[in-house]
Amino acid sequence: MSTAVSPLAPSDVPEMPAIAGVRLATAAAGIRYKGRTDVLLALLDKGTTVAGVFTKSKCPSAPVEWCRAKLKGGAARALVVNSGNANAFTGKTGKASTALTAQIAAKAVGCSTSDVFLASTGVIGEPLDATKFDGVLAQLAETATPDRWMDAARAIMTTDTFPKVATATVKLGKARVTINGMAKGAGMIMPDMATMLSFIFTDAPLSASVLQSLLKAGVEDTFNALTIDGDTSTSDTLLAFATGAAAAHGAPKISRASDPRLKAFTKAFQQILADLSEQVARDGEGARKLVEVVVEGATTKPSARRIAMSIANSPLVKTAIAGEDANWGRVVMAVGKAGEPANRDKLSISFNGIRVAKSGARDPSYNEKEVSEAMKAPKIQIKVALGLGKAKDRVLTCDLTKEYVAINGDYRS
Amino acid sequence: MSTAVSPLAPSDVPEMPAIAGVRLATAAAGIRYKGRTDVLLALLDKGTTVAGVFTKSKCPSAPVEWCRAKLKGGAARALVVNSGNANAFTGKTGKASTALTAQIAAKAVGCSTSDVFLASTGVIGEPLDATKFDGVLAQLAETATPDRWMDAARAIMTTDTFPKVATATVKLGKARVTINGMAKGAGMIMPDMATMLSFIFTDAPLSASVLQSLLKAGVEDTFNALTIDGDTSTSDTLLAFATGAAAAHGAPKISRASDPRLKAFTKAFQQILADLSEQVARDGEGARKLVEVVVEGATTKPSARRIAMSIANSPLVKTAIAGEDANWGRVVMAVGKAGEPANRDKLSISFNGIRVAKSGARDPSYNEKEVSEAMKAPKIQIKVALGLGKAKDRVLTCDLTKEYVAINGDYRS
Repeated sequence: MSTAVSPLAPSDVPEMPAIAGVRLATAAAGIRYKGRTDVLLALLDKGTTVAGVFTKSKCPSAPVEWCRAKLKGGAARALVVNSGNANAFTGKTGKASTALTAQIAAKAVGCSTSDVFLASTGVIGEPLDATKFDGVLAQLAETATPDRWMDAARAIMTTDTFPKVATATVKLGKARVTINGMAKGAGMIMPDMATMLSFIFTDAPLSASVLQSLLKAGVEDTFNALTIDGDTSTSDTLLAFATGAAAAHGAPKISRASDPRLKAFTKAFQQILADLSEQVARDGEGARKLVEVVVEGATTKPSARRIAMSIANSPLVKTAIAGEDANWGRVVMAVGKAGEPANRDKLSISFNGIRVAKSGARDPSYNEKEVSEAMKAPKIQIKVALGLGKAKDRVLTCDLTKEYVAINGDYRS
Repeated sequence: MSTAVSPLAPSDVPEMPAIAGVRLATAAAGIRYKGRTDVLLALLDKGTTVAGVFTKSKCPSAPVEWCRAKLKGGAARALVVNSGNANAFTGKTGKASTALTAQIAAKAVGCSTSDVFLASTGVIGEPLDATKFDGVLAQLAETATPDRWMDAARAIMTTDTFPKVATATVKLGKARVTINGMAKGAGMIMPDMATMLSFIFTDAPLSASVLQSLLKAGVEDTFNALTIDGDTSTSDTLLAFATGAAAAHGAPKISRASDPRLKAFTKAFQQILADLSEQVARDGEGARKLVEVVVEGATTKPSARRIAMSIANSPLVKTAIAGEDANWGRVVMAVGKAGEPANRDKLSISFNGIRVAKSGARDPSYNEKEVSEAMKAPKIQIKVALGLGKAKDRVLTCDLTKEYVAINGDYRS
């Protein structure tokens, strides 16, 4: 299995500023890995609100069920994330393990267990021994500092090839507020599946319901418009925390999602989600190409999304991109199988701006050499114009390489 | 690209008997391939009825549209199949090409164009030059004989690694009738997609509507319960022809699908479809394992089917099988993402009869060595017991290997 950093990793990693009200610490608790950190504790000041969205899996992990239940309170004081063990499909043991982890964290932090949020990623089906957190979390609570963002992003990695962070500073009213985000995903740990975890922190004073609205609206065209292999983890978790600390230097308290003062913040928040989700695609298992699928001229946006997802999840399309082949025949296939309104004779298809098919047949101006050259780029845009309506949508994915099969299939051979 | 015969190819190839009323001939028309046959003409005696089922793609190929239209007549005199060019996504040219092919065939056979059925497989997006059939089909019509079944099965192959045939002889009333079938599929030709074509022939005197009923019921648990990569071709075609010749030696004419005399025939017909569809899975691109996914204890059969398909189409499950890894965590993931009723804590999962997970956690009797040994078998059964109801279903697929990626992605590198 290759351990090289993905060639699609962003070249610039931002400086991550502190967020007032957030302190971070990481440790090597020996959950599964040797010689690396595998636990993150984020301490959140009193008054921090929380929102979350989770996997739609019907078989969610124990931490997902824990977070869903605690979200009702709307308040958070601690986030504990471990890598190495997903605590998924662990039955009653898994539930007990989340409860014990929360107890240890609550004691270390000095809060109620209902203010502790949990996420786990790694092996599934193995019991997570929560006693390993005993002592560790207490020490982390004592040593946490506001500047450990890169350490935090590294501690939650499984086989991600690079840590994923993003930051933005914007005005809320007349005050400046900051949003920091981190994500892990598309890595793999044997014998396990990719899990996407992402955590967003801000000092903006937002009510839990405002935060939830922002998150729900924000994921629609970012994390929900992302696919590596069409497989949904039992553990996907995206949590957002707002400490409200910026109120001290004049940021207005926002309690309605429709508040016009939220405009710049909403845009920046959405941008952070877009940035992090693109980084996940860029670290897709075995990925050598970032692929953007744009579908326009659809009858509705959900219809455009389903067609874009059908293209983005097609193994035949993804292997063609890996082979630097502008195989629009497979794109037609993927449009056809989506089951959405489509008229073969109105279809146009472009790769990186070069139209290869038009009105249901090969574009008369098709130039094999020009297209082949374009397909060598590390980022490929597949654009499908359906010619039916005005709706459009966009999905991000990556190519399907032999490395993907090696990462996910080779470890027993 | 490997040209070796799939290790999963059946060891026994049946002797294919003649079917009264059917004559076959093949030729090398030079559509795309060199040094091999690429056209099949099947001549059908007067009185032959026909039925068909086709791809559900919204962007079907020109021959699929041709057949759908002609099926209304219920009568057939000729079937023309070519490999090398799918005549798909070829716009108006494609439609004209089907009309010209049918004209040439009708003239050669001496029938109406509406009694000619067409299927094409191969490159898509390239115009099919139907003038190449000129002269060729006339010669084939003159030289066709009843015994060319293996030649026929070979002429329709693209990159299939073995020809796929099946036969059965059963009683209809007091007479013996024969069913012969052939299929191609899961092969690939650059730059193209897999297409499944299958043709069934019988001398039983069945009305077109009876044949259509048999076909519709028959595909449900055979060809429709088969997936290689979740990608649906624009060209999938399954046609059945009944010459009625067995009426001459006493077979009763059947005009109602509910006729009790059809019982043995229906069973044999279904068996042929099951046999051929399993052969397609055995020749799945790059396949090294045949995988049977059984879901039981579901609330309904469609629900069981959707869960089974979710497992069978999961790249993570398929790569795990390729790696001989009994990765039930990924099976749980695929159950969870299907969106169907499932209760994590009631799930049990077995690989080749060895239970590895029970009541939502690892089976206490799990023996790594025993399971690893079992995963080396060329056929793997994944059984999921949901524990919710009494419905069950079954889907066939194959593993996902680096060879799949090589076949579909490597040809430009």
